[in-house]
Amino acid sequence: MNTTWWQNPCQAVDENATGQARARQQQLTKPAGSLGQLESLAVQLAGLQGRERPTVDNVFITLFAGDHGVVEEGISAYPQAVTGQMLRNFVGGGAAISVLARQLQASLEVIDLGTVDPHLDLPGVSHLRLGAGTANLARQPAMTAGQLQAALQAGRDSAQRAAQAGGQLFIGGEMGIGNTTAAAALASVLLDCPAAALSGPGTGLDNAGVRHKAEVIERALSLHALQATDPLQALACVGGFEIAALAGAYLGCAQAGVAVLVDGFICSVAALVAVRLNPQCRPWLLFAHQGAEPGHQAVLAALQAEPLLALGLRLGEGSGAALAVPLLRLACALHGQMATFAEAAVADRPA
Amino acid sequence: MNTTWWQNPCQAVDENATGQARARQQQLTKPAGSLGQLESLAVQLAGLQGRERPTVDNVFITLFAGDHGVVEEGISAYPQAVTGQMLRNFVGGGAAISVLARQLQASLEVIDLGTVDPHLDLPGVSHLRLGAGTANLARQPAMTAGQLQAALQAGRDSAQRAAQAGGQLFIGGEMGIGNTTAAAALASVLLDCPAAALSGPGTGLDNAGVRHKAEVIERALSLHALQATDPLQALACVGGFEIAALAGAYLGCAQAGVAVLVDGFICSVAALVAVRLNPQCRPWLLFAHQGAEPGHQAVLAALQAEPLLALGLRLGEGSGAALAVPLLRLACALHGQMATFAEAAVADRPA
Repeated sequence: MNTTWWQNPCQAVDENATGQARARQQQLTKPAGSLGQLESLAVQLAGLQGRERPTVDNVFITLFAGDHGVVEEGISAYPQAVTGQMLRNFVGGGAAISVLARQLQASLEVIDLGTVDPHLDLPGVSHLRLGAGTANLARQPAMTAGQLQAALQAGRDSAQRAAQAGGQLFIGGEMGIGNTTAAAALASVLLDCPAAALSGPGTGLDNAGVRHKAEVIERALSLHALQATDPLQALACVGGFEIAALAGAYLGCAQAGVAVLVDGFICSVAALVAVRLNPQCRPWLLFAHQGAEPGHQAVLAALQAEPLLALGLRLGEGSGAALAVPLLRLACALHGQMATFAEAAVADRPA
Repeated sequence: MNTTWWQNPCQAVDENATGQARARQQQLTKPAGSLGQLESLAVQLAGLQGRERPTVDNVFITLFAGDHGVVEEGISAYPQAVTGQMLRNFVGGGAAISVLARQLQASLEVIDLGTVDPHLDLPGVSHLRLGAGTANLARQPAMTAGQLQAALQAGRDSAQRAAQAGGQLFIGGEMGIGNTTAAAALASVLLDCPAAALSGPGTGLDNAGVRHKAEVIERALSLHALQATDPLQALACVGGFEIAALAGAYLGCAQAGVAVLVDGFICSVAALVAVRLNPQCRPWLLFAHQGAEPGHQAVLAALQAEPLLALGLRLGEGSGAALAVPLLRLACALHGQMATFAEAAVADRPA
């Protein structure tokens, strides 16, 4: 087994298609630049898909779920049982991401990497059972080396299924009670930033709860003595199964040539891990939204990301990325279907 | 003819449906508030449509076009002939709003209120011919009283057609070379704010052009001695046919009970005029985006609007509102289709 597959080269962006798309944008019947971020979005997708007029018809969503041992430190507003209950809801069609996937005619696969109920067996869910949740990162490494490898590979496998299914856009979602704590801990290491600046209410902590969460994270960081220069070690010690799977999926997508739309705080931290593991993956990552969790902005800034939406979302599940899909589709439709000045016999502005 | 029809009462918001929708939001399988602005959006639409679970299937777009005499002052980057050329492009399917209407399966009607070419006769366009564009607002009132009445009524007529067609959402678009100058002048009067703070590049002026535009507006404001307390007089003297029509349409929608999604800077100024003419219309106005034109933010703030998008758009045509339609639809789908905690047997957080 190749244990450093993520260092393999990523696909190159097609500069020729990028140039053609940029030239086309200048010819469309609108003042140059007047469609703002949608213009650069269409040009970027052209470069990733290797054609002047990209489309985003085929959207592939994978939801990665996992439990977190650190919940025993009292860092979440919800009980850990909710992770398993929500798995049932994802495949039952009643969760936010289930509704959104249906509306967008996107495929949705649900991967259980390891929850506290080892006997959970739900039709429509892939149960990988890497463990009964991670270990408590405040007391020991969250994952063993073997679990880390398996979680990264699970993400890579999803990316490869997306590529095989002709996916033009990959969205990774996550569910795991406690995972904003793991994500904030990871961001704290990788951005070399105090935990208090990156810790937020998650699903609904009060101010005292947020302070306690930051203290738990600081304790974990002291215990493991992590360095920003070793993202893999940080991921093993304070990450989570679903965060590692997301990072693996993003890297796998960049290697397979599938564009990625990154969701909120936890997914953005996974993207940061992916970029630190292999910076070549960065051009394949688009960012959907700036969420409500306070650490998100710092992570997006470190990635030089320009998210499309800012609606105060803090749900996860990939929901923010799903909500941005119509903007990508409409950006492509405008780019591909608008008339040029010449076609419409409209006067362009004098040079 | 009732010459003050806009003062007639607007439809009341259904507080019962609002309350039901708010209660439903608390029961859906997500942390309370985690869908951010989309939650309040669904609740607001419920109140406007008078049912717990609103939908936005039927979208009615009217594009209002008109020319502006003030273009002779050299305040636009494009020649005036472009207004007529773009009318052809709107019905020909090649303009941004044409592409968006098609993608959204929205109806699109195109109203020519008066362009510099009085012989323009395009299949699919309603030519109302209120004049060969407005008069130059820097030298005389832009409109006669009769033209103002006719433009307001044209908007009202569109609103009534939207209501008759079962429209669940009305979008007004605009096209008119020179109309950011008229809009900035109107905003300057109504917000009692210097023109320089509200004047921007429009379709592409350079810095010197923007300064000149502000000077032209200040000259017009001195000439007409307008007061914020007389929005109708301001509309007649420094407005435009399409801006008056938009204001009339917004007022007509509020009276007919059709929700409105307001587009960019020019539409937001028309919304400000409408609210000043009849404050009862305000609850019927949703705001799609914060555009690139510098005056837009001040107008949105005066309206206490919370726009959904901020993509650096500055095209007009209703395009920014059209781009936000999928967010309204997805907000309704989430609101209407997500499972409740009870339905999905998911534990809500402990009280």
